[in-house]
Amino acid sequence: MASPAISFAKANEKRFLDELKALLRIPSISTLPEHKGDIEKAATFVADELRRIGIEHVEVIATEGHPLVYGDWLHAAGKPTVLIYAHFDVQPAEPMDEWLSPPFEPTERNQNLYARGAVDDKGQLWMQIKALEALMSSDGKLPVNVRLLFEGEEEVGGEAVEKFVHEHGDRLKSDVALVCDTELFAPNLPTLCVGLRGLVYTEIEARGAATDLHSGVYGGAAPNPLFALCEIISKLKDAEGRILIPGFYDDWASPTDAELKAWKSLPFDEEHYRKTEVGSTVLTGEKDYGVLYRTWARPTLEVHGMPGGFIGAGAKTVIPAKASAKISMRMVPNQDPDDILRKFTSYVNSLAPKGIQLSIKVHSKGKAVVVSTDNDYIKAADKALHEVFHTETVYIRSGGSIPIVGQFRTDLSIPSVMMGLGLPDDNIHAPNEKFHIPNFYKGIESVVRFLSLLGE
Amino acid sequence: MASPAISFAKANEKRFLDELKALLRIPSISTLPEHKGDIEKAATFVADELRRIGIEHVEVIATEGHPLVYGDWLHAAGKPTVLIYAHFDVQPAEPMDEWLSPPFEPTERNQNLYARGAVDDKGQLWMQIKALEALMSSDGKLPVNVRLLFEGEEEVGGEAVEKFVHEHGDRLKSDVALVCDTELFAPNLPTLCVGLRGLVYTEIEARGAATDLHSGVYGGAAPNPLFALCEIISKLKDAEGRILIPGFYDDWASPTDAELKAWKSLPFDEEHYRKTEVGSTVLTGEKDYGVLYRTWARPTLEVHGMPGGFIGAGAKTVIPAKASAKISMRMVPNQDPDDILRKFTSYVNSLAPKGIQLSIKVHSKGKAVVVSTDNDYIKAADKALHEVFHTETVYIRSGGSIPIVGQFRTDLSIPSVMMGLGLPDDNIHAPNEKFHIPNFYKGIESVVRFLSLLGE
Repeated sequence: MASPAISFAKANEKRFLDELKALLRIPSISTLPEHKGDIEKAATFVADELRRIGIEHVEVIATEGHPLVYGDWLHAAGKPTVLIYAHFDVQPAEPMDEWLSPPFEPTERNQNLYARGAVDDKGQLWMQIKALEALMSSDGKLPVNVRLLFEGEEEVGGEAVEKFVHEHGDRLKSDVALVCDTELFAPNLPTLCVGLRGLVYTEIEARGAATDLHSGVYGGAAPNPLFALCEIISKLKDAEGRILIPGFYDDWASPTDAELKAWKSLPFDEEHYRKTEVGSTVLTGEKDYGVLYRTWARPTLEVHGMPGGFIGAGAKTVIPAKASAKISMRMVPNQDPDDILRKFTSYVNSLAPKGIQLSIKVHSKGKAVVVSTDNDYIKAADKALHEVFHTETVYIRSGGSIPIVGQFRTDLSIPSVMMGLGLPDDNIHAPNEKFHIPNFYKGIESVVRFLSLLGE
Repeated sequence: MASPAISFAKANEKRFLDELKALLRIPSISTLPEHKGDIEKAATFVADELRRIGIEHVEVIATEGHPLVYGDWLHAAGKPTVLIYAHFDVQPAEPMDEWLSPPFEPTERNQNLYARGAVDDKGQLWMQIKALEALMSSDGKLPVNVRLLFEGEEEVGGEAVEKFVHEHGDRLKSDVALVCDTELFAPNLPTLCVGLRGLVYTEIEARGAATDLHSGVYGGAAPNPLFALCEIISKLKDAEGRILIPGFYDDWASPTDAELKAWKSLPFDEEHYRKTEVGSTVLTGEKDYGVLYRTWARPTLEVHGMPGGFIGAGAKTVIPAKASAKISMRMVPNQDPDDILRKFTSYVNSLAPKGIQLSIKVHSKGKAVVVSTDNDYIKAADKALHEVFHTETVYIRSGGSIPIVGQFRTDLSIPSVMMGLGLPDDNIHAPNEKFHIPNFYKGIESVVRFLSLLGE
């Protein structure tokens, strides 16, 4: 049942992929100030393409942080309006030496396209744009009204888009959001994500002496901020992964029994997951909860990096004057990021060792989200995926965080459809990130069908 | 009572300082492989100068690590032979942004010469060479026999010099060693260092998952090596600084009562030390011991850096596949580095959290040393300093480690005179390292007088 749009998409697959490669070559790493120009380059690249395919009012919107790209096409009178969201910024590529091909030189191997941002989220953003192009080129119009909102700082907290959505509710007025930034539960298993964990990402800076000191001369008298951070961090979580911050578990909602039952029927092989995805000798975490529960619906706390002191090769006998620790917490429904942050801050400060001054910076924060499955949009997405994959769609959560989804609900009062075509082994945020090329094409087809179904 | 040599030194002060600056411009950082060529350059610079001033058998000796420089002058029949030791390698300059002037562009401010290596140890090495030049130029000969042994990897454990001394006892046959790599207890207070702590410098590497993972997706199931290291490190030392490694304090010798009594009479103002040297809100460490005791004669443990994960600016939600921690222990007399290392390794391994593989690397190790004060060499040094400073010499220990001093005693059966002209606020191993220029000149004069007294 190939529509003209789907035929067009199939006929243009190679070009679509080549265009994506060009976008992937732009190292738009939002957390690194030296790549600011690359984010702007990526924004322009996206905006130019929107204009080319016939989207109107296309604008690169400057913000206090990285730019947003907006565009719309609103000529489908009486049809729903879909707010299409994705992001064109990427995570840093480090550690560089573990990439098999350069992170910003997209490389095809085994039907996969390897590059930083391949699946998170440039590939999925391009999937959305190419679906619109296919519909426009074959039908001369779109089956629904669309607004597009792409951001350049999702990986660093999305402050600019948050402010924009908050302040421009009228301009963004829509019926549903389509967010393509998630993954299939398993290859060829059509999947809709209906829950996300929240995130509070902090950095604790610890200061001791006024300057770096020689550990021989001053060891025994000077406070050591790195050791202090180790002491503090070791008290944040027990060996089972249970978070020790007082009051941390005061408010949290467990999944429904129906949801838990559905998760049990998912094709999940814990041993396979351990071996091929995690690659560790054992899985860790709270033993009273299964792996999916732990990663989707239980809060967690991780330390991501501890800058400070001497981190080069070899030895330097320094007591650093300062050091810091990047620490994030994932939250589940009913946990309030501000409340969690208050409890974290107060507990961490209570742990400050003698002679150490602490300050806590917040890099980003966002609530957990659970979206309802009982609406026509989810049903259309379910049907679209079914038509592409010819099998039942499953509903899952993700342990990751897409704060904008929560905001679409609170600020715009619209539900989100999280239709992502990534795969569990896509190495997002890690070396050798990839996008399975057939999924890129299936994603385009799924978006075409989803929008077409909404327009019927 | 200025001898011709001292007059020569005074007349040539400016040239001596300019030469030192040239040596300081060579970034001979022994721990960084990319500076290997610079260590060789520094070795050649030193060797060329030895030849120029009339030292014989000068040789740059290639080793498995960085080169050594040897030279001798053995024409003072019937006089003692002095083995003159110093090092021409330096610590890394990081953190770069805290230097007020570039670390490898020596800069004079307030009678100080600022540069990495200014006082540790290029300035003191140059002080020795210039004393020899002054004696040679004014008298046409030296008052004693000398052998010179300079090394290029003191800051990374001194393996090459250790092997050389161990294997070439005959070639190095001397009566006493002169080591200039320590400091005055206070400005204008002549000081001989008679004790050093030992050092074991290790790096613990922790591995968890096979690759870096997204903390949203895998947080709750994947082991986190950085968190694991924090857990381990927090159990190595209590809040008072007492080391928790089982058996760590089995063998340690306290200072003699006479030594402790002498320390009490040193001009030490704890509050001034806290404010101006350490610059912290309080001093830390075992409350049952005074500051000098804690830093000179009690063992300590410090963490120097924790490479791994994301240490750039901003946020990255990564669970690193591996991370490591640079940890060193200072030891006091009677503690055996191999025994301590065994106990450390076994304890650390016993603390390995679930899913984490540990491996421990040793960067360097050396015994603590206490030298006798009851010999003619120390007496000559005491007298030489007295003639230069016109006040009583004090005997102190240093919390730092100079493993070669222990080896001179065990392998060559000779005592060492540790006559250093640094100052407590010289920022060794830290940004803005300096050498007080008058001390450079007084050091030259002290060495001239010391060698002259030994030749009488």
